Amino acid sequence: MSKFITIDALCQLVEEKQFAAARAFLLACNPADVAELFSELPDAALVLLFRVLPKEVAAEVFSHLDSDVQQRIVEGITDKELATIVDELFFDDTIDFIEEMPAGIVKRVLAATDSATRSQINQLLQYPEGSAGSLMTLEFMELRRDETVAEAIADIRGSRDKKETIETCFVTSPTKLLEGSVALQDILLADDSTKIIELADPEICKVGTLDDEEQVVEVFKKYDLYTLPVVDREGRLVGVITLDDVVDVMEEQATEDIYKMNAVSPADDSYLKTSALTLAKHRIVWLLVLMISASITGAIIRRFDEVLSSMVLLAAYIPQLMDTGGNAGSQSATMVIRSLALGDIAPKDALVVLRKEFAVSLLTGSVLAVVNFGKLLLFDRVGVLVAVTICASLFCTVIIAKICGGLLPIIAQKLKMDPAIMASPLITTIVDAVSLMIYFVLATTILHIH
Amino acid sequence: MSKFITIDALCQLVEEKQFAAARAFLLACNPADVAELFSELPDAALVLLFRVLPKEVAAEVFSHLDSDVQQRIVEGITDKELATIVDELFFDDTIDFIEEMPAGIVKRVLAATDSATRSQINQLLQYPEGSAGSLMTLEFMELRRDETVAEAIADIRGSRDKKETIETCFVTSPTKLLEGSVALQDILLADDSTKIIELADPEICKVGTLDDEEQVVEVFKKYDLYTLPVVDREGRLVGVITLDDVVDVMEEQATEDIYKMNAVSPADDSYLKTSALTLAKHRIVWLLVLMISASITGAIIRRFDEVLSSMVLLAAYIPQLMDTGGNAGSQSATMVIRSLALGDIAPKDALVVLRKEFAVSLLTGSVLAVVNFGKLLLFDRVGVLVAVTICASLFCTVIIAKICGGLLPIIAQKLKMDPAIMASPLITTIVDAVSLMIYFVLATTILHIH
Repeated sequence: MSKFITIDALCQLVEEKQFAAARAFLLACNPADVAELFSELPDAALVLLFRVLPKEVAAEVFSHLDSDVQQRIVEGITDKELATIVDELFFDDTIDFIEEMPAGIVKRVLAATDSATRSQINQLLQYPEGSAGSLMTLEFMELRRDETVAEAIADIRGSRDKKETIETCFVTSPTKLLEGSVALQDILLADDSTKIIELADPEICKVGTLDDEEQVVEVFKKYDLYTLPVVDREGRLVGVITLDDVVDVMEEQATEDIYKMNAVSPADDSYLKTSALTLAKHRIVWLLVLMISASITGAIIRRFDEVLSSMVLLAAYIPQLMDTGGNAGSQSATMVIRSLALGDIAPKDALVVLRKEFAVSLLTGSVLAVVNFGKLLLFDRVGVLVAVTICASLFCTVIIAKICGGLLPIIAQKLKMDPAIMASPLITTIVDAVSLMIYFVLATTILHIH
Repeated sequence: MSKFITIDALCQLVEEKQFAAARAFLLACNPADVAELFSELPDAALVLLFRVLPKEVAAEVFSHLDSDVQQRIVEGITDKELATIVDELFFDDTIDFIEEMPAGIVKRVLAATDSATRSQINQLLQYPEGSAGSLMTLEFMELRRDETVAEAIADIRGSRDKKETIETCFVTSPTKLLEGSVALQDILLADDSTKIIELADPEICKVGTLDDEEQVVEVFKKYDLYTLPVVDREGRLVGVITLDDVVDVMEEQATEDIYKMNAVSPADDSYLKTSALTLAKHRIVWLLVLMISASITGAIIRRFDEVLSSMVLLAAYIPQLMDTGGNAGSQSATMVIRSLALGDIAPKDALVVLRKEFAVSLLTGSVLAVVNFGKLLLFDRVGVLVAVTICASLFCTVIIAKICGGLLPIIAQKLKMDPAIMASPLITTIVDAVSLMIYFVLATTILHIH
């Protein structure tokens, strides 16, 4: 609520041309909050208010904005203003911004920057999306292996560029080969005459420019890193990835996994910004595949229609059987898929998972069967043999569901497929078919229906 | 594979008492990798190899170990060795370690530390799990508001304690009130005589010791922070939370959401370390609840059993109808739940979501109905009216499923419940019941069955 009051007030200030007051108010807010407010402003007020910000604040606000708002601003400002903003932005934010812009704006941005920056931008834009190169920043602190602590401190104090981080500095040879890293704290604590290379830790993690971002996330998590240097094929230091950018990738990966586990193709944009048509496209393929494969269950029921005709009551328990099987299987699949993603389980643990899921299914299956048996006799008042049929089917279904749920994601991983697609919807379809078979076979046997 | 060769080799070295070689090998590995190797060692070799490590490395390896391995080591070393390790550990790692240990070991740890550390540990242990206080570290760089840049640099260079981060220093008044933060880079770039308070940014984000960790994660994400100061009720600086610890919380939250969305109660331990009994306990409640509520569908079928008796064929399409409805609803629920978690959607967007899901359901529903109609006539060779009944039910089911899937999580959020529980299993149960009702009503109307 209060957000909209604020936005109205800002528009009022713009209308009354009280720019000093607007500026003072915006400067009192955190840039991330200013970005949130800006997203809701009409075009005219947006550009005017963006212009009143000092350039450093403007750049920071700009980096927090979604690309559609960035575009609206860029379309309203002059080339010179654009150049100032790009100059103030961190390099990786510039790249993120350019990647989302239409060709016309990219041209303006490139024309507005000096030739050195332009060639760096062009180089970074060449790294494929999702590669380590596309995540890295060029604003890190690099020290020469042979400089002394005194020289290094002078370098750090003298460097007028903003750096994304100076907590860890990277040590390179004269040919730019990465030789190690050194914590700023260690430099500050050492004697002035110590050589930097003596302080450097040569055993550092690094990745190649073309390594996959999933690998980058794994390295960050495993070694608890804040920064990770990126080297080219010759081992030369070309950039540094910082933890804040990795956090975004982690979040995207979790979203992607959750979507895949629920039969939604991952989207690039946020829900509200995606059109209904695109949303429908991301969903229809899986719905079709699953609908068609659910026909198998229909075929099974048709094959046993005499059984059903002679006892229509049996049909009443099909949904319960199928739902419980689906839920039991999806529980197992969910835990195994997530554990695979977090590295808690590897394909070599298949046997352990099998044993565990079998034990769990025996436990949960018996409890469910017993409770259902009581309910069938006491509330539904069906015959004992019918209740036995239903509960025996339920028990078997839970066992098969949990074993499928536990093993299919591991098999997918083994086959180099994404385990997340082996989640609830697919498991449900498989378990449905199997549980119906069991149900009808048990019904014909126990109830002597032919 | 190679991991086990390495472990065999290490055990061999221990047996032959070649400790220097083992030590050299371990020092050539990254501490996180050493921790991974240690987890697989038998008790005797574990303690012996842990002892050959220099204390700083030993502490770092220790902080990477799971609590069961930590316990095995602590049970094998002397009180003096324990004191050295605790002394070297970062404070928050000590707290994480103590929280998982049985009372006997906690006593030993407290006895092994000096009284100042002991009282700090006791204080930190009092913060409830999941609070900002339980996440924070005490090893940060604090500067007095009135000191000069020269004094501050001397302080930083002179501070012999390890700090978790010195990139951002925190400025306090003589009464310890948090007055702002200052980037180390700005200190290094400023003139020696500048007062620290002049460099400090007073507009900094902070949280209270008892604030919830979810709030902490939100602040970190929204403002792209690396560090976040924690203040007590009087506004005094008591600790600092660093991004690496927040990353762990984020991961746990994603896991928790994924589990809840698939009807598994979140577990504390990793899959492989949780017993089958505990796993069964985490799953049975939801299975029971969902099984019992699936009885509603059974009741609906029983109510319409004359319809089914006169046309058993209709039963064959119940699973397909229910599965497709469940999948369609869970797709919507998944996207909305995740968007709520990421802050892309707020309850005020309910109308937008409703409109969007309605449009999506019209699109996907028609495609599914048309494809299914063709399949029913061409492959299943059912009558036209039966096909119309099935496809009309399918269409209505998809619409209702997507609207329920889109709105129920938002309603849950409004009611201050966790939206994640409104995910596939619950939606499926609701949609099942509704879709069956529609199916039978349409069947009686279109096919004139009474």
